[in-house]
Amino acid sequence: MPTVLVLDAPAPAPPPRLGSLTGRARVLHADAETLADRLPEADVLLVWDFLSHAARRAWPGAGPRPAWVHTASAGVDHLMCPELAASDAVVTNARGIFDQPIAEYVAALVLALAKDLPRTLDLQRERTWRHRESRRVAGTRACVVGSGPIGRAVVRTLKALGVAAVLVGRTARTGVYGPDDLDRLLARADWVVCAAPLTDDTRGMFDERRFGVMQPSACFINVGRGQLVVEDDLAAALSKRWIAGAALDVFEREPLPADSPLWTAPGLIVSPHMSGDTVGWRDELGAQFVSLFGQWEAGRPLTNVVDKERGYVPGH
Amino acid sequence: MPTVLVLDAPAPAPPPRLGSLTGRARVLHADAETLADRLPEADVLLVWDFLSHAARRAWPGAGPRPAWVHTASAGVDHLMCPELAASDAVVTNARGIFDQPIAEYVAALVLALAKDLPRTLDLQRERTWRHRESRRVAGTRACVVGSGPIGRAVVRTLKALGVAAVLVGRTARTGVYGPDDLDRLLARADWVVCAAPLTDDTRGMFDERRFGVMQPSACFINVGRGQLVVEDDLAAALSKRWIAGAALDVFEREPLPADSPLWTAPGLIVSPHMSGDTVGWRDELGAQFVSLFGQWEAGRPLTNVVDKERGYVPGH
Repeated sequence: MPTVLVLDAPAPAPPPRLGSLTGRARVLHADAETLADRLPEADVLLVWDFLSHAARRAWPGAGPRPAWVHTASAGVDHLMCPELAASDAVVTNARGIFDQPIAEYVAALVLALAKDLPRTLDLQRERTWRHRESRRVAGTRACVVGSGPIGRAVVRTLKALGVAAVLVGRTARTGVYGPDDLDRLLARADWVVCAAPLTDDTRGMFDERRFGVMQPSACFINVGRGQLVVEDDLAAALSKRWIAGAALDVFEREPLPADSPLWTAPGLIVSPHMSGDTVGWRDELGAQFVSLFGQWEAGRPLTNVVDKERGYVPGH
Repeated sequence: MPTVLVLDAPAPAPPPRLGSLTGRARVLHADAETLADRLPEADVLLVWDFLSHAARRAWPGAGPRPAWVHTASAGVDHLMCPELAASDAVVTNARGIFDQPIAEYVAALVLALAKDLPRTLDLQRERTWRHRESRRVAGTRACVVGSGPIGRAVVRTLKALGVAAVLVGRTARTGVYGPDDLDRLLARADWVVCAAPLTDDTRGMFDERRFGVMQPSACFINVGRGQLVVEDDLAAALSKRWIAGAALDVFEREPLPADSPLWTAPGLIVSPHMSGDTVGWRDELGAQFVSLFGQWEAGRPLTNVVDKERGYVPGH
C-alpha cells in the first residue's frame, strides 16, 4: 500500500475526504518540524498547508523522495526548489478550485472601489450622511495580468459587467497580450488586476515604474502572490496619488504584521488571503486530491501537472 | 415663448444643459418657499429637487397649472397628489438614466455582503488578520421586486454573475412573477432586492411578516424608496438574526437622522441615496429634459409619460 504523507496546516483541521483512501493508502501526517524525517517514507506528499515553506526546505535533505507532490493551492512558489525542479517527481496543483471564487472576489473589489463603498462604511460609522457621485463600471477598462485559469475567469466576470478586460500573459497568443504590451495596457487601464504566478520573471513586477505609468484614476488589485508587488512602492504610489486606490489580498509576509504601514495606506483595502476561499473550499480541495489519487493509483497520467521550470500548469 | 419653472435643489447647483433652451423658453427658478407663487406662470415644471415634496404641496393651490411636469428622478412619489393625478397635466420621469448604475450598485452590495467586505474593513481598522470563508455568488438565488427598467437591469446584471434572479411585478406576465408568488420566492431567495415604485400598494410591503419568511442566510437590499420598508421591522429582523444582512440606500427620512438606530443595526450597510448617481448623472438628467422639451415644443407625444394612477411609466 502506498504511503501518503500530509503536510498539515496548523489550523483548523486535517484535510477532509481522505477517509476514502482507507485500504488504498497509508496516510501519515507531518508538520513543519517533522516533515524532513518522514519524507523518505512517502510515495506521495500532499502539501495541505499551502502557506508553509516547509516542503521547500525539507526536499533537498537525505533519503528517497516521493514520486508525486500535490499542493492544495494554485501557486507552487511555496514548495518549488531547484532540487525538486530537477527531480523526476511530478508536481500537481489545485487548478480549477479557485478560479470562479477569485473572479467574484475581484469583481467585488472593483465594484466596491467604483462605488466608494469603504468611504460609505467609514461615514456610516460616523453617522454622517454625505452623498457622493460614484463611478460606473460598464465601459471602463481592465488589464488582468496572469493568463492562467484564474486570470481568465477574472476577465470573463469583468466582461459580464461590461468592463473591457484584456489578459496579459508570459507569451502573446490568441486572446492574450504579451509582456511587450504590458506598459501600454497598464497606462490605459481603470483596473489593474494581478493574478500571475510567482516566478523569477514576475517577482516584484509591480514596482515604482509600473505604478508610475498607471492613470491617476486607476485602481490596483492583487490576488496573486504578495511578492509580485513591491509593497513600499505601492504604498508610496497611493500616498502620492499616482493611483486612486488598491486592494491586496496577498502580502510578502502573511499574516500581515500588525505594525505594517499597509494597514493604513490611503485608499488601500487589506484582506487576509481569502479571495478563493468560499464555503466548502476545503472539501473541494480534499475531493480533488482523492480524485487525482485515483488517477495515480490506476497508473493513468495525472491532470493538473505543473511545469516545474515555469512554475505553473501550462495552458491555452 | 413658454415658461419653464425649475424647482431647484438647495445644492449643489441648478440643472446643467438648460442653456440650450435660450430663445426657446423663459426659464424661471423657484425653491420650496417660492414655488406656489410662481407655479401659475409656468407652462412646464421641472422638478430638479427630487427629494423635495414642495411640488406636491404647491400643486393644489390657486391659479392655472403647468400642462407638463417633469421630474429628474425615476420615482414620482414625491410630487404626486390627488389634484395632479386628476388633472390634465402630463407627468414624465427620468426613466433610463439610473437603470445601469443602480444595477451595478446592487451587484456591488451583493458581492460585498457575500464576500464579507464590511467585516474585512472593520478588521483592517483593527490591524487584525482573520481569515474567513466567504460565499460564492454564482448559483445563489435573487428575488428582485419591481419590474420596471431598474429591476430588469438588476436582474440582467445579477444573472451575468451567475445568480438565478427572478423578477416580481404588480402583475404576472411573461418573465415576471406576480404578487401571489412573492412570499414563495422570498422564502427561497439568498438576495432580496427592492426596486419597486412607492405606491399605495407597495408602501410598507417589507414588514415583519415578509422578513419572517426569508431564509436566515438571506440579505435584503433596498434601492427603491424608504417607505417600502418598515424600518423598525427590518432592524428587529437583523437583531433577531431572522436574516443575515441588509443594505439600505433609501430611507423613510432623508438625510437619515444622526440619532437613527439604523446607523448601527447589526449587519446593515447604510448609504446616502447614491445608488444611481454616477459621475455625469446630473448632466444626463439635464440633457434628458432638454430632449423631452424638444418633443413637447414640436407638439410630438412625450416619452417617459408616467401613469399617474399607478405612479410609474407602464412598461413590458
